Amino acid sequence: MATKTVAFVYLIYKLITFVNSEESLNSILFNNSQYEFIDLTHSFDNNTVYWPDMQNFIFTKKFEQLSAAEKSWYAANDFAAGEHGGTHIDAPYHFYQSGIYVGEIPLEKLIIPLIIVDISSLVSDDPNFVLHKHHLDYILNNNLGKPCLLIFKFGWSKYFHDREKYLGITTGTDTLNFPGLSAEVAEWITTSYKNVVGIGVDVASVDPGSSTDFPVHKIVSKAGLYGIENVNLHRTVPDTGCTALVLPMKIAFGTGAPLRLVAICPKRNPLRF
Amino acid sequence: MATKTVAFVYLIYKLITFVNSEESLNSILFNNSQYEFIDLTHSFDNNTVYWPDMQNFIFTKKFEQLSAAEKSWYAANDFAAGEHGGTHIDAPYHFYQSGIYVGEIPLEKLIIPLIIVDISSLVSDDPNFVLHKHHLDYILNNNLGKPCLLIFKFGWSKYFHDREKYLGITTGTDTLNFPGLSAEVAEWITTSYKNVVGIGVDVASVDPGSSTDFPVHKIVSKAGLYGIENVNLHRTVPDTGCTALVLPMKIAFGTGAPLRLVAICPKRNPLRF
Repeated sequence: MATKTVAFVYLIYKLITFVNSEESLNSILFNNSQYEFIDLTHSFDNNTVYWPDMQNFIFTKKFEQLSAAEKSWYAANDFAAGEHGGTHIDAPYHFYQSGIYVGEIPLEKLIIPLIIVDISSLVSDDPNFVLHKHHLDYILNNNLGKPCLLIFKFGWSKYFHDREKYLGITTGTDTLNFPGLSAEVAEWITTSYKNVVGIGVDVASVDPGSSTDFPVHKIVSKAGLYGIENVNLHRTVPDTGCTALVLPMKIAFGTGAPLRLVAICPKRNPLRF
Repeated sequence: MATKTVAFVYLIYKLITFVNSEESLNSILFNNSQYEFIDLTHSFDNNTVYWPDMQNFIFTKKFEQLSAAEKSWYAANDFAAGEHGGTHIDAPYHFYQSGIYVGEIPLEKLIIPLIIVDISSLVSDDPNFVLHKHHLDYILNNNLGKPCLLIFKFGWSKYFHDREKYLGITTGTDTLNFPGLSAEVAEWITTSYKNVVGIGVDVASVDPGSSTDFPVHKIVSKAGLYGIENVNLHRTVPDTGCTALVLPMKIAFGTGAPLRLVAICPKRNPLRF
């Protein structure tokens, strides 16, 4: 009798959730306040960090006028930028000639479960840290084999407003110094975890700052994954359970583009099981 | 007995959905394919429609090089643009000096239930159509008093790739001709429907093309609503039940910005009630 009751309840539950599914996204997001929206994007202004040989973000006031007679105000600006600065996406075409452009990345890869791989305690502020396979158990433990975005937290967002420190610029040399992934990790992810659609980092490049041949960019691009650089991880984001909204400016033939990156995350629920 | 069973089932249902709520956003979006993602954004390229006195989108190839020796490829570009072209957002500051910038619009207004007000059959391709209050019963019927974005469909997206037709440029005059909202409708929405957080249109301006004093922009900006112009409505979007993702490039002090606009919509469900 108990088994029958459970089966009956489950059947009714599935039926209700199936039939009512059309209303449920809005109701789950907005009716019960069970989710919060976390902005993982650095703002674009004249101080936004760009890669050394890229066009910085330049913001030019074009109109800013108050008309007392008409009691009206009007303001508008122009801007110029390279594709690869601030919080941005790298399309596969950036490092792979047969790869797709920004405008071609399907939405199914841009609205996607998010896994945060927090290795900031391992990095411990070392600008020469390189992530190797032996450092990682997060991926093995949290990767469920379904499409997802991995974002690696090196703990570098706190330096974003100090460009020299963030990029690890050493006076008198061309070398940059900030942490990144090893080619070994990129190979491992792209061959063993074909469900991963993109890789993000809270530093200026998926390759370490000292890299000159960019193997991680090449491996990831060739495998069809996109990259996200300069993720803003000032706020703590749960390792699992969030949905990433990865919505770049839709530059049709872009090798990259400014990105608005948001995580929708469950608020803490004491009854979770 | 039947009443008790129903009450029991409902209780169990609420308990299950509450306790499991932390898993449910990802499961609802990705496990059962009950939702689809619809891109409401026009791509940015050298043909993207901009307002006449704005800087067009200019895309400049910076690097595009194949290194045979290293078997590697590298490509990157620069771009320049005005804030107000293509599919973009207008921040309240655009037409109201005390209004907020793009970078200040809270995410709670950018991830939001979507109501499509399809008046394309009324417009019937007339470039001088102006929407008045007496045309509208959609808002009264579908507005539930909760925060939402209204997008008005004039049926103009089909002209986007023909700039002269889209803007209604008449040779020898400065006048533009495309449909838009009346000041009456803007006043009505901002005073009677304080739950509306933004207004979008599938034309180049919320004001009609022939407007020279832009009352709709002024009313909407002063009321703290954002505007969305050049929405891409090539595809049919359900009038209600979708969630809008309104994610602009995060230009800190922007009066406007390129926008990636996506709707997450329920697929048709024959059992819906």
